[in-house]
Amino acid sequence: MTLFGGIEAGGTKFVCILAEGPEHVIARSEFPTTTPEQTIGRAIRFFREPPAGAGELAAIGIASFGPVDLNRSSSTYGYITDTPKPGWSNVDFAGGLRREFNLPVGFDTDVNGAALAELKWGAAQGLHTFLYLTIGTGIGGGGFVGGAPMHGLVHPEMGHIRLPHDWAVDPFAGNCPFHGDCLEGLASGPAIEKRWGMPATRLGMDHPAWALEALYLSYALVNLICALSPQKLILGGGVMRQTQLFPLIWQKVPQLLAGYVRNPLILEYIDQYIVPPGLGSEAGVLGAVALAMQALQHK
Amino acid sequence: MTLFGGIEAGGTKFVCILAEGPEHVIARSEFPTTTPEQTIGRAIRFFREPPAGAGELAAIGIASFGPVDLNRSSSTYGYITDTPKPGWSNVDFAGGLRREFNLPVGFDTDVNGAALAELKWGAAQGLHTFLYLTIGTGIGGGGFVGGAPMHGLVHPEMGHIRLPHDWAVDPFAGNCPFHGDCLEGLASGPAIEKRWGMPATRLGMDHPAWALEALYLSYALVNLICALSPQKLILGGGVMRQTQLFPLIWQKVPQLLAGYVRNPLILEYIDQYIVPPGLGSEAGVLGAVALAMQALQHK
Repeated sequence: MTLFGGIEAGGTKFVCILAEGPEHVIARSEFPTTTPEQTIGRAIRFFREPPAGAGELAAIGIASFGPVDLNRSSSTYGYITDTPKPGWSNVDFAGGLRREFNLPVGFDTDVNGAALAELKWGAAQGLHTFLYLTIGTGIGGGGFVGGAPMHGLVHPEMGHIRLPHDWAVDPFAGNCPFHGDCLEGLASGPAIEKRWGMPATRLGMDHPAWALEALYLSYALVNLICALSPQKLILGGGVMRQTQLFPLIWQKVPQLLAGYVRNPLILEYIDQYIVPPGLGSEAGVLGAVALAMQALQHK
Repeated sequence: MTLFGGIEAGGTKFVCILAEGPEHVIARSEFPTTTPEQTIGRAIRFFREPPAGAGELAAIGIASFGPVDLNRSSSTYGYITDTPKPGWSNVDFAGGLRREFNLPVGFDTDVNGAALAELKWGAAQGLHTFLYLTIGTGIGGGGFVGGAPMHGLVHPEMGHIRLPHDWAVDPFAGNCPFHGDCLEGLASGPAIEKRWGMPATRLGMDHPAWALEALYLSYALVNLICALSPQKLILGGGVMRQTQLFPLIWQKVPQLLAGYVRNPLILEYIDQYIVPPGLGSEAGVLGAVALAMQALQHK
């Protein structure tokens, strides 16, 4: 069987899998993100040593934290570019893997990768315009518009949009080092922890933290609906494992749109419009596998 | 010569032209938007009576105010749908023209039309991902992502995104009947007039109104940059004829992004990134002509 290697490269950890497809994962490894040499080195060793009897590696896909260069005509295509993460600026991520294995290497943002996996095997099958957001340590978003992955000038940075912030209700200044109270600064996992003085996982399900979190996420979703008119919004990431957020968001988004976008998916079936990933927490790493498959097809 | 008919259908007025191309406009007519029967009727009469010696009408394009149905597989494709504008809900705009003339009819939003004209003949030539916003009586936006016009579930409604609104600095509550202080509620022409008690055109060039206007527009542009990563943002519409807004926006947008999106177009050449329409105030009606040309090609 043809084997595909997938790397979900996060700022905190890497997840690597060898798989024949979404339902046939042969091997898996997770390890913390340290230096590029060490971390990419571990990924390379993982792909070098497949389990006995496994097929041959045909392509590798990388779904990476950013910012990354996705412009195929650029001399730094496949690089992580100017990241504040120490040591990771100007790392030739895709090129390094390609030279090491002499195989096709697919490369995109972590969220565009997850969106591709959701399109192929998950909650976005058959759609042409949809978004995938991850709400966790950071907040990021990607997706497809008119059937094409969202690239553009660089790539979207949906975590950094600005929202109404009522300081009287929420005096927390936000913890984004660039923007203070952008979406990520108000609604990421670390922002919740800093605002309430304890990790989000320790806040009770009826803690007021969740209504506030749902409000900020709803403002962001409303802005993305108005900017892009997606056919579906898929919300993943650690914070969204607090599933009590979904009903709060389903209530708040139509309230904020106030009847302006008149479509049954918003007016009647909002729980089918704003959804968790069909692939659950595997969306990211299966996204990397989907990028590998695509790279083999297009080689 | 082959003639194309273009209708720029605005909520306030219709502009119709007969043209061989962007530089060969044969006839032009503007009239106020009243009832659908009367207004579309005038457009039909205009196309029925071309100047003596003009070529034959080959296709018609409509760049329309919305909301409109752009889904080609829908039974109401080409309709204006649920508009608050009296009499205009559920009007079969494209179908009416098609039946009247038995010609291909192109149909899209006014801003997607203008974006298409800018792509073919104006400031967006050679780009695949860019936005066109009009800031006037209302605020709307459209554009192309990955080479395809932005449609989606319905179509974008960029005028209705939510922004930070510092009530201590600007106590004006906004005049959007749906959302109060969304972008359109804070920054459209009528919002400026209502906030300052006189039409925008009567405010001096150094009136504080313009810095505030530039701030709201910059928040919106930052959100659109983060949501979509466009290669260019084109700003048209009556309010942007106050060209003193451009330098204020060129200063404010990089300030708000705070070095987060590191691209030379933002860091060094912002005046080439956020620009007026290459086609000036003709972008809209030439967009309708471009839609007519496209309809003939794809018939």
